[in-house]
Amino acid sequence: MQFTKGHGAGNDFVILEDPDGRLALTPELVAALCDRHRGIGGDGVLRVIRTAKHPDAVGRAADAEWFMDYWNADGSIAEMCGNGVRVFARYLAGSGLAGTGSFPILTRAGLVRAVIDGDTIAVDMPTPRLGAAGTATIAQLTLPGTAVDVGNPHLVSVLPDSIDLDSLDLTRAPVVDPALFPAGVNVEFVTPLPPLDGFDRHVRMRVHERGSGETLACGSGALAVAAVVLHDAGLAVGTVAVDLLGGRLVATRGDAGWTLAGPAVLVASGETTLG
Amino acid sequence: MQFTKGHGAGNDFVILEDPDGRLALTPELVAALCDRHRGIGGDGVLRVIRTAKHPDAVGRAADAEWFMDYWNADGSIAEMCGNGVRVFARYLAGSGLAGTGSFPILTRAGLVRAVIDGDTIAVDMPTPRLGAAGTATIAQLTLPGTAVDVGNPHLVSVLPDSIDLDSLDLTRAPVVDPALFPAGVNVEFVTPLPPLDGFDRHVRMRVHERGSGETLACGSGALAVAAVVLHDAGLAVGTVAVDLLGGRLVATRGDAGWTLAGPAVLVASGETTLG
Repeated sequence: MQFTKGHGAGNDFVILEDPDGRLALTPELVAALCDRHRGIGGDGVLRVIRTAKHPDAVGRAADAEWFMDYWNADGSIAEMCGNGVRVFARYLAGSGLAGTGSFPILTRAGLVRAVIDGDTIAVDMPTPRLGAAGTATIAQLTLPGTAVDVGNPHLVSVLPDSIDLDSLDLTRAPVVDPALFPAGVNVEFVTPLPPLDGFDRHVRMRVHERGSGETLACGSGALAVAAVVLHDAGLAVGTVAVDLLGGRLVATRGDAGWTLAGPAVLVASGETTLG
Repeated sequence: MQFTKGHGAGNDFVILEDPDGRLALTPELVAALCDRHRGIGGDGVLRVIRTAKHPDAVGRAADAEWFMDYWNADGSIAEMCGNGVRVFARYLAGSGLAGTGSFPILTRAGLVRAVIDGDTIAVDMPTPRLGAAGTATIAQLTLPGTAVDVGNPHLVSVLPDSIDLDSLDLTRAPVVDPALFPAGVNVEFVTPLPPLDGFDRHVRMRVHERGSGETLACGSGALAVAAVVLHDAGLAVGTVAVDLLGGRLVATRGDAGWTLAGPAVLVASGETTLG
């Protein structure tokens, strides 16, 4: 089986080109491919398949030629992944399956437009919805936060000045109110950074993803953080530079909705005997 | 640059075939290749180079055709790696660079003989030397152990019946006496398992490796554990099945010295744009 490996700000994926849907992709195979020690390693698998050939995309071939069949590393299926779809777009452009400017991609969460600008790829994202107040507790420390729904659940905690972002121990999941997040939650901790030219706000964040632990980057998390930061600043539109462990993502709220932009690179390709 | 990825009981490596030493391998390139999110990912790099072509192997070409140029994931150079040399042997046999039976490999720690028997590859290992008593402390729990030198430092703690191996939190390094281990230490925790046909002893272990945290497998650690287990049993020679998170390794003390045997597989190969 042929594969390509790529990442967006350190959020990494095994890409399988399967235009006609001939590959028998199973949860077991996905987990084996994503195994970081016994497989290739990745946060998930991106299957590149024609919209016309995937049962989840029936009748949508006129909207987009390509469907992002995204699987989490544990073999479960996910609707959307902000960094995943940017890496998916890089693969389409790099392999000649799509143009090098702007093109649509169908995902389980709907149609997304990818815009390629050199090293940066921007994609549309769902509008984050701010919800109730909540708290995240790490050891003896309880921090206030805001629930944000980006299609998946988030809790964003803007740290008080007295707390150092680097001091937080995220080797375990922060404890949250299970009634507020019955399906678990991704928790983001945020601290402001000095202003940057071209951005309305500039912050640093760390994220604990449900099921994964602390990760280098989380696209929907960056969007959730930007939504809280713009809301706190009273800005109806604006651009937020979000510095994560894996690099910088830019979340923008414009008149037409939200976009997420950042690097997306392919680092290796080859053949595997797995599966 | 061409690469192959392989592992021995979950201890994984990026293999670079560079017979004539043309590759400018640097610590930065090794770290980039081993980066699990932005690179290919591995516990280390194995460069396959002719003994005659490596400065660390000058004058040894008559002993072995191939030299294992082993680098840790952080870009430092290591002398020896029990699982690494087994994966190295699998690569040599699989790519036709060596026979499929038994052949010598030169390492920085000296000459090793690899013996291939189907899925299993056995290699000679240095004789472990038992040292002083010490302790390992995890949270409020202080456990007794024995220092073992396998070329690298180990502390082996055979757990009392009252302690469940799975309950130990190895997300942080166990605290040891720094005077006993000035250069740090790999700490192994061991619990007995029911007897297995063909083995003198059968144990389960978990390991916290210095600089790496808990890992799926550690070849020298399995050897250190077997040395303590055989010593405690009063056996001068014997075979110990050691079950690790990543699979089973077999450590044998024979009249001629120690061997380590276990699985070694290649899972992928291809080309990378890194470097």
